[in-house]
Amino acid sequence: MSSIADALRLTGGTVDLASIDTDAAPGYDGDKASGTAALAAMEPELAELQERLFAEGRSGGERSVLLVLQGMDTSGKGGTLRHTVGLVDPQGVRISSFKAPTEEERSHDFLWRIERALPEPGYLGVFDRSHYEDVLIARVRELAPPEEIERRYDAINDFEQRLVDGGTTIVKCMLHVSAAEQRERLLARLDDPTKFWKYNPGDLDERALWPAYREAYQVALERTHTEAAPWHVVPADKKWYRNLAVGTLLLDALRGLDPQWPAADFDVAAERRRLEQEEPVA
Amino acid sequence: MSSIADALRLTGGTVDLASIDTDAAPGYDGDKASGTAALAAMEPELAELQERLFAEGRSGGERSVLLVLQGMDTSGKGGTLRHTVGLVDPQGVRISSFKAPTEEERSHDFLWRIERALPEPGYLGVFDRSHYEDVLIARVRELAPPEEIERRYDAINDFEQRLVDGGTTIVKCMLHVSAAEQRERLLARLDDPTKFWKYNPGDLDERALWPAYREAYQVALERTHTEAAPWHVVPADKKWYRNLAVGTLLLDALRGLDPQWPAADFDVAAERRRLEQEEPVA
Repeated sequence: MSSIADALRLTGGTVDLASIDTDAAPGYDGDKASGTAALAAMEPELAELQERLFAEGRSGGERSVLLVLQGMDTSGKGGTLRHTVGLVDPQGVRISSFKAPTEEERSHDFLWRIERALPEPGYLGVFDRSHYEDVLIARVRELAPPEEIERRYDAINDFEQRLVDGGTTIVKCMLHVSAAEQRERLLARLDDPTKFWKYNPGDLDERALWPAYREAYQVALERTHTEAAPWHVVPADKKWYRNLAVGTLLLDALRGLDPQWPAADFDVAAERRRLEQEEPVA
Repeated sequence: MSSIADALRLTGGTVDLASIDTDAAPGYDGDKASGTAALAAMEPELAELQERLFAEGRSGGERSVLLVLQGMDTSGKGGTLRHTVGLVDPQGVRISSFKAPTEEERSHDFLWRIERALPEPGYLGVFDRSHYEDVLIARVRELAPPEEIERRYDAINDFEQRLVDGGTTIVKCMLHVSAAEQRERLLARLDDPTKFWKYNPGDLDERALWPAYREAYQVALERTHTEAAPWHVVPADKKWYRNLAVGTLLLDALRGLDPQWPAADFDVAAERRRLEQEEPVA
């Protein structure tokens, strides 16, 4: 495991988000320039491992990777998608953005829509928000009764264990920004007409509930940090570090899988002869 | 319209694929190095226009773009996805790869699975193969009776007209390789263990039907080249030209839409005051 992964992975037990510095760069001692270069330098290996995984999936393999991105507004889920997930071939990536559930989705168990968005074998699935919203905003906004929220933590653990048993490596990241940094980013959106579309006055209502969200995150992190699917808290005030950290976690996951180019399931020499001896085709 | 688009767009009437040079670079007089640089230089504008379209979609807009990639095996659909579609933010892209239809898909009309894969407002949808397979392999392999194939050309035109009326710009590209170039690419796959997974002995059976496929493509191109959704035949023996050409067609489509950053639907000054005067949140 890389030193970044080592530094970001929760150790279990009580989680105190206020004690985790949002502006730090755990496990990395370089600066912005070197961190940006380090991410770019990762591209060839990341891209090759992703292609190997894809090839494996096309050849009967069942493994996949699921990257779960959670975080408050402006924590940089979109930026991570662009700068980190954007490094690999889009053909092998399936991104799902989870908004407020539709009426149909609400009529099912909370994991119904999640199940439908899981990556197929060989794919890198990315969740921009996820089933964790159902224990975060759902808890803060009391969208479900306390006993239902309570039930969901265990349901999530069972669900994720099943995915892992089925061959999915789950990389869970909470992008951790400070309230002060969020304020700066919201003000920046208000200063830039090309960013108005990202701003929603309702965001300030959620922001006013910051302590309740922090509490909800802490409980979720504590209850769903498992050996099968551990959590990483990624300090996200520094965008370059956030991108580098998620890239590193992805690379670690792919290295762990170590997918191999599938062997030929046909006779290579015979196929070459067929091509070399074929009748003219056009 | 760019000179490349101008050169690639069918003019209507009879299509004779044998007369279209697969190794040419219509509408472009540079070489490989300058063509590769030209594609890279397109990235900022392509990415910005795509983000504007995405922003529009998030703000109530209904427009989208659908890129349809068709072509024989090894014509470079995958390479185009990686090198051209890969230039824009993966968040705003939805790629659908159509394989042989499943039993469930076959139990519905051929457009059923296509409908479900259409891009949502603001998205760039990409079809790696498409509903055209239902008049290509379906015709060559007689997977449906002749009268059903016949029916489908008109059904496709009606379907695409409806999409266009609903705000989708359709960019249809046939990646046109020669049989000789396909042979080289298949041999290259057989020479490279990292490419065995892309090779399927059945590909040679399809290859043996090259003239029938050419005929099927010609009929499809003739029957479904419409003002609403015109076809482009992209010479694809030169990979750099193929990538540049599809990038240019995408850029043209986005420029044509000319999406604008959505105006604020809230009081910017009032929101700034709310943030500046808020109680401490954490």
